[in-house]
Amino acid sequence: MLKRALQSTAICTARRTHPHRTLASFAEEMAAVNKTAHAFDKTRLDALLNRRFFYAPAFEIYGGVAGLYDYGPPGSSLQANIIAEWRRHFIVEEAMYELDTTIMTPAPVFEASGHVARFADWMVKDTLNGEVLRADHLVKNVLEARIAGDKEARGAAPVPEADQKDKKKKKQVKTTAVKLEDAVLAEYESILAQLDNYSGPELGQLMRTHNITNPGSGNPVGEPQQFNLMFASSIGPTGQHPGYLRPETAQGHFLNFNRLLEFNNGRVPFASAQVGRSFRNEISPRAGLLRVREFTMAEIEHFVDPEDKSHPRFKDVADVELVLLDKYTQAAGSTTTKVMTVGQAVKDGVIANETLGYFVARIYAFLVRIGIDKKRLRFRQHMANEMAHYAADCWDAEIQNSVGGWTECVGCADRAAYDLSVHTVKTGTPLVVRQALKDPIVEERLAADFDKKALGKTFKGDAGKIQEAVAAYKEEELERLKGQLAQGPATIRTVDGKEFSVEPTLLTVERKTFKTSIREFTPNVIEPSFGIGRILYCLLEHSFWSREEDVDRGVLSLPALVAPTKVLIVPLSAKTEFEPLVKEVSTKLRQAGIHARVDDSNTSIGRRYARNDELGTPYGVTLDFASVQNRTMTLRERDTTKQRIGPIDEVIAVVEALVNGRIDWEQACERLPAYDGTQAVE
Amino acid sequence: MLKRALQSTAICTARRTHPHRTLASFAEEMAAVNKTAHAFDKTRLDALLNRRFFYAPAFEIYGGVAGLYDYGPPGSSLQANIIAEWRRHFIVEEAMYELDTTIMTPAPVFEASGHVARFADWMVKDTLNGEVLRADHLVKNVLEARIAGDKEARGAAPVPEADQKDKKKKKQVKTTAVKLEDAVLAEYESILAQLDNYSGPELGQLMRTHNITNPGSGNPVGEPQQFNLMFASSIGPTGQHPGYLRPETAQGHFLNFNRLLEFNNGRVPFASAQVGRSFRNEISPRAGLLRVREFTMAEIEHFVDPEDKSHPRFKDVADVELVLLDKYTQAAGSTTTKVMTVGQAVKDGVIANETLGYFVARIYAFLVRIGIDKKRLRFRQHMANEMAHYAADCWDAEIQNSVGGWTECVGCADRAAYDLSVHTVKTGTPLVVRQALKDPIVEERLAADFDKKALGKTFKGDAGKIQEAVAAYKEEELERLKGQLAQGPATIRTVDGKEFSVEPTLLTVERKTFKTSIREFTPNVIEPSFGIGRILYCLLEHSFWSREEDVDRGVLSLPALVAPTKVLIVPLSAKTEFEPLVKEVSTKLRQAGIHARVDDSNTSIGRRYARNDELGTPYGVTLDFASVQNRTMTLRERDTTKQRIGPIDEVIAVVEALVNGRIDWEQACERLPAYDGTQAVE
Repeated sequence: MLKRALQSTAICTARRTHPHRTLASFAEEMAAVNKTAHAFDKTRLDALLNRRFFYAPAFEIYGGVAGLYDYGPPGSSLQANIIAEWRRHFIVEEAMYELDTTIMTPAPVFEASGHVARFADWMVKDTLNGEVLRADHLVKNVLEARIAGDKEARGAAPVPEADQKDKKKKKQVKTTAVKLEDAVLAEYESILAQLDNYSGPELGQLMRTHNITNPGSGNPVGEPQQFNLMFASSIGPTGQHPGYLRPETAQGHFLNFNRLLEFNNGRVPFASAQVGRSFRNEISPRAGLLRVREFTMAEIEHFVDPEDKSHPRFKDVADVELVLLDKYTQAAGSTTTKVMTVGQAVKDGVIANETLGYFVARIYAFLVRIGIDKKRLRFRQHMANEMAHYAADCWDAEIQNSVGGWTECVGCADRAAYDLSVHTVKTGTPLVVRQALKDPIVEERLAADFDKKALGKTFKGDAGKIQEAVAAYKEEELERLKGQLAQGPATIRTVDGKEFSVEPTLLTVERKTFKTSIREFTPNVIEPSFGIGRILYCLLEHSFWSREEDVDRGVLSLPALVAPTKVLIVPLSAKTEFEPLVKEVSTKLRQAGIHARVDDSNTSIGRRYARNDELGTPYGVTLDFASVQNRTMTLRERDTTKQRIGPIDEVIAVVEALVNGRIDWEQACERLPAYDGTQAVE
Repeated sequence: MLKRALQSTAICTARRTHPHRTLASFAEEMAAVNKTAHAFDKTRLDALLNRRFFYAPAFEIYGGVAGLYDYGPPGSSLQANIIAEWRRHFIVEEAMYELDTTIMTPAPVFEASGHVARFADWMVKDTLNGEVLRADHLVKNVLEARIAGDKEARGAAPVPEADQKDKKKKKQVKTTAVKLEDAVLAEYESILAQLDNYSGPELGQLMRTHNITNPGSGNPVGEPQQFNLMFASSIGPTGQHPGYLRPETAQGHFLNFNRLLEFNNGRVPFASAQVGRSFRNEISPRAGLLRVREFTMAEIEHFVDPEDKSHPRFKDVADVELVLLDKYTQAAGSTTTKVMTVGQAVKDGVIANETLGYFVARIYAFLVRIGIDKKRLRFRQHMANEMAHYAADCWDAEIQNSVGGWTECVGCADRAAYDLSVHTVKTGTPLVVRQALKDPIVEERLAADFDKKALGKTFKGDAGKIQEAVAAYKEEELERLKGQLAQGPATIRTVDGKEFSVEPTLLTVERKTFKTSIREFTPNVIEPSFGIGRILYCLLEHSFWSREEDVDRGVLSLPALVAPTKVLIVPLSAKTEFEPLVKEVSTKLRQAGIHARVDDSNTSIGRRYARNDELGTPYGVTLDFASVQNRTMTLRERDTTKQRIGPIDEVIAVVEALVNGRIDWEQACERLPAYDGTQAVE
């Protein structure tokens, strides 16, 4: 169960894409909601991202390594801006405690957390060429291809060409039009629906039963074997300390719990937050930024009293409407979502508690604010059999995209007390909250009282074990012991299985009054966990379109908040006469805290703007001869390509208000007249 | 040489502390320049940093691992603010290209860079208990202890108690008062002065000659062995790709050079910049944040034409005065610094070129701006024998502190074309700039011309090798070949050592005119490389002091720019009547972009302020009954503890101006009257 448990909460955040849940109508939905004037074209987007160096395969000149990507200048800035907004939205607004813990982690930590034993995927090897495949992906790909072949044979439209190309690139299975028997088809569909449920041996059985081989080679595959996804290393010069690269940042929070608690004056609730790199040695990563071996996560651990999961600011978000896909709907075989306010969802018990609901709403607000299309965002609840045994509830923010379908980009789980408990047990350091009770709890119960001196004399080295054994007795056992002692010596069995006969003179059992003025408890943890790379990729897809009149060049309609560059400064040419103005405008924008770039390259203004449409730069200002003469400047808006004109300082003021979100383009147009290409403003 | 080469440039940045260069008068200098009212007390600072969770040993509840530290909330915020200012100061102001490349790196990259073979330290093993020690540190510690013992025996003052304690903690060698012969003393001093020069076998020889044993156990040590400092792992499920965790971010820049060049329209100069985690498996790290196994670096690679290292903004920094310790002074056995403007230093050839000088000045400005004491900051030039063979010049920003003395915190090296060249050779991908020449270069030279068809017929598979061999001929070899061919067949020797007799009909050598309109060159790299953790620790030391009247509590006088929290909001109590005001002030400060915290804990206002003096919070505002009645608020300044009073909105406006550096405290006092503890303002 732990594997599942781990996967279905934080650890899973940056992994699962649930591609088998992709909507059949995905392509159509996409066309309807996408901003593009043309149908979304993944090939064009990829070409743009590569051409403009948003990101690229790492070590490309060395042939590359699957699942490792480098972010270039626009990708780095976009990522930095997403993280900056994340910090503002969560850490600053919620007064969370930021942490920065190490990636290199000694083995005992992940032994306690369960990762060493069970953070693994099942893999199979091609018995002839040695190729390694992920077992569940193999079953899924082969069966899906057979179902698609069946559909084709039954006369459904063939798979669109673009999708075929995509499949080929991802080395997926080629579809062949072969009709299946109805019973076989039903069985395949049933297998796919519960794919996450199979163990390794069960997957092996499925492969034998359904004659599944390596589609690339046609060769048989061996028995599924577990492959631990953590990168291993060792710490220190003698190799004496085995270590792993963390697969999530969460353990760093839990291990520092006592220090954080003290920092918060001993009280819960409070939250810690961390942005950092994590690592997973994926078996064969082939989904671009959606499944990588090294990635940036942003994780929050909100520590809360298990008996009180209300949230003081819940009322601020209660009216937020969300698209929810709850577990009951899924269990009934449907993916029909419901629109519901967070307040209603918590009230109806759809979302387990206020704190979880609060974070779901805050996650929603964050994603929409940075530019995720709210029509392609839903919250899917984990099903009963999918959720960790210790978790009370878990919701994934899934963002629809062309690679992974509805892809988990944020997980929001109630991890209960699992993590703090396992580290407490392993280290002997209690990770608990001690709370003074207003009204002490008074209770009567049986208690055993030894004559320790006499006991020691009689039993020597075993005296301690006898006391330990009795200390572990429950109320009814003490009752029985009391009865025995009333009649003579009692037999006490120690943990090592020995039995001792203890005289009533050495031990009495009596009812006593106990007063507790301290309540001690292990806090529960609500964990929103963000895969930044996944969010970034989905954002790029949602922002991408191309103009009717120029399909070869794309536009990235990124919000100014996260756009890598906010303003492009375009002098008519690199001639020295524009230099003072370029410097003046650059300096003024920088002083206003706005990230601008100058493009004085030797090409037309139109080309320079087009290049920056691809970089997602929302605004551009042009400095020309009129600027030199009249101190005017035009302002261009990326999405409409409309231009306005005004005095330089007024344009800067308008840009500043636009970038900081105080006004929108419509309001900007009220302040600056339209530019028709000829006029100058006094 | 490569080991030295690597160590003395970027790779070295976060490593070398040169503690043997510590000034004798360090303690006195410190007392003179430190802001503390009492002598600097490292024990008190450590207690504060631990108590307030600036940072702590990672995995503490698991017993910890040497050289791994977690940053708690104030440490994380301080680090984030230092990095934010670094980004603003370098990336934004200089329009650099930010990168975010992977940590996990396949082995061939570090084979090419030289790290796999030679990025190592020499270690020795205690022959009886197996303890591992770094060889150079062992020699240094033992000889320094003998010299100190000699001084004591000669009647000098004994080592101060605080230093002794510190030594004990660092497991250094206990000093015993034994007088040395003058010749021996001179030899020890000479060894220490050139410690960086010894190879492993030489260190082994020194240990035998001078009877150096493990001071902890008294046992002999074995021969020095090389220990590679990179953490090793392997990528993928079959372990087929050995990989390392990067020990510097620099290679990520170099491997992406062609993409970056294209991003900059094919022109140099330009600079890339990256902030990220790097790893070094130190042999026995024992110097707190100054020598760690995992650390955050910020690195710039400025690519420049080797024939033109001028910098367009050099004139902006030419008048900046720096404290310099040049290589000639050091070679003469002195550590006397010179104060010089950057302009003069470049003019006099002290600093090799404008670009290097520009960055040295910018590094200085950055460090001083974030709060490093300029009296404890100097730039030390690498000595001829210390510098990489490929480097033109290298300057370290050294910051004085109590742990490492003058500690290298930033390296600024001219790495020449080394890195781009080795990757070009290894991958066959040219990492070069191609520049159109205004005036094409026309030259005459000999050229060989084969009758390829006939050559192929005659020599079959060897024809290609023959052409290759001739293509590699220099002018004089072609001249000789021409002479041979004039008399008959010529003998051509191929790379595999075979010789072929080639008839004159197959090959002619003639003088031809060549016109070159493209200049191709490998750019040079100027590399400023920052160890963020080292800078952060030095900043904490420079900011720490304690008040005359309250020595048990410290104050961290961090500049508002980097202080973890800018403003503490202190309501008189947690009573509900203050809630609306607390919320109002919090919201207004947040909207002004100022990071504030509320402290409504159940303790006196004085205690709450004292706690925040330790956190370095520069300003505090108090909300009391007068605030509720008159809408006034007091403003407290951390260093002076002086308080002013004014209307809430005016105080917020003043705080905003203070935090953003538009006014200083004196100007703030002009806007707000002093608070004497009683008055209220209408």
